[in-house]
Amino acid sequence: MTLRTYPRFITLEGGEGAGKSTVLSALREVLHETGREVVSTREPGGTPLAEQIRGLLLDTHHETPTIDTELLLMFAARAQHVRETILPALERGAWVISDRFTDASYAYQGAARAGDPVFIAELERRVVGIAPALTLLLDVPVDIGLQRARGRGAADRIEGERDDFFERVREGYLARAASEPARFRVVDATQSPQSVAADAVAHVRRLIGESS
Amino acid sequence: MTLRTYPRFITLEGGEGAGKSTVLSALREVLHETGREVVSTREPGGTPLAEQIRGLLLDTHHETPTIDTELLLMFAARAQHVRETILPALERGAWVISDRFTDASYAYQGAARAGDPVFIAELERRVVGIAPALTLLLDVPVDIGLQRARGRGAADRIEGERDDFFERVREGYLARAASEPARFRVVDATQSPQSVAADAVAHVRRLIGESS
Ligand SMILES: Nc1ncnc2c1ncn2[C@@H]1O[C@H](COP(=O)(O)OP(=O)(O)OP(=O)(O)O)[C@@H](O)[C@H]1O
Ligand SMILES: Nc1ncnc2c1ncn2[C@@H]1O[C@H](COP(=O)(O)OP(=O)(O)OP(=O)(O)O)[C@@H](O)[C@H]1O
Ligand SMILES: [Mg+2]
Ligand SMILES: [Mg+2]
Repeated sequence: MTLRTYPRFITLEGGEGAGKSTVLSALREVLHETGREVVSTREPGGTPLAEQIRGLLLDTHHETPTIDTELLLMFAARAQHVRETILPALERGAWVISDRFTDASYAYQGAARAGDPVFIAELERRVVGIAPALTLLLDVPVDIGLQRARGRGAADRIEGERDDFFERVREGYLARAASEPARFRVVDATQSPQSVAADAVAHVRRLIGESS
Repeated sequence: MTLRTYPRFITLEGGEGAGKSTVLSALREVLHETGREVVSTREPGGTPLAEQIRGLLLDTHHETPTIDTELLLMFAARAQHVRETILPALERGAWVISDRFTDASYAYQGAARAGDPVFIAELERRVVGIAPALTLLLDVPVDIGLQRARGRGAADRIEGERDDFFERVREGYLARAASEPARFRVVDATQSPQSVAADAVAHVRRLIGESS
């Protein structure tokens, strides 16, 4: 592995409606209360150009991207996000929490769409180059997550996939968590929002204890 | 090299204002006159989604893409273009002429922006997979090309680069032509439009003779 791990870099992963955005707010607050600068961001997105790439990825008005096109658009956005937003924040000492990061490409473009994980790893090494110290995987059965997410309005292109797609996403995430146990913490996201947040906060407090 | 070469696939390359679009029209006509189906297309672009990626690449309203972002956006658009437009046309027996293709990434993102040609070759092998039988490189000194191109109105993001950038583009193209002499024909694009078109047509007639 030639990735550089940043001790103040945290990522949130999980399928649709797992509760990532909800947990992100709780983590922001905890870090703020202790006087730390926090940059919270999301993928795909996190810079003006990367948000426009997100628009192309989620839009259903043009033809469907091929799997290679989807993969390269994701990494184009991620390269921009790392260089313009994440690294400048980490390098001035801020904490960065990202709602999704490279693991999402292994789960969605890799496990769910059968993209080659060797190619994904090559892109990660070449254009990302960094890794979080802590990744919280919010794990929830697919039907529960989709029910939560679909309560929110019109489905985007990814949300419109079939249930077996999201089953492969979930399995892909769990396999990745199992293969990197030092970085991943799996949180049972079927719990109440309060309990999920409490678990997430406990993991982050442990990380703060180690790193500062 | 694991690329598949298609005998009816022709690409036009060259710097800004070399005369690619002008030559493309002449080649279309010659192929049409002989009763052949011709699909003419361009990069970045050539499908609705790829044209939107082109917009992001040339736009100056968001922040500048990093070199990796630019490279991956180019190949995302190219993957889409190959799968949706070029291969379907070639597979039904049509001729395809593209105004720029993969060589442009070696010249612009590789030679001019110092992107790693090994990575470019990896992207080419993984997401493009095909090569033209004939590439016409319209070669013209940078100042002449820019004078022609700048006669046309507001410069896009690439056209706004400095002259030394375009010198590296030109050198990059010439080096590529020298390294693949069987595929490339270098056309002296300082000649009159009629003479440039006549040279290009002669090369294409030779290809037609070989392939049909
Ligand atoms: N633990 C929970 N129990 C029940 N509902 C929850 C829980 N966490 C979040 N929700 C609700 O589920 C919905 C989706 O939550 P949220 O937006 O945080 O998920 P997400 O993982 O960010 O989804 P997406 O992948 O679509 O961005 C919201 O309406 C939220 O209020
Ligand atoms: N051989 C030539 N001599 C003089 N002018 C030319 C010649 N070929 C094209 N032109 C003119 O130069 C301008 C640029 O030509 P053209 O658009 O064909 O170039 P291009 O290579 O497609 O440029 P770009 O890279 O910007 O797309 C046009 O105004 C065209 O009429
Ligand atoms: Mg969310
Ligand atoms: Mg042109």
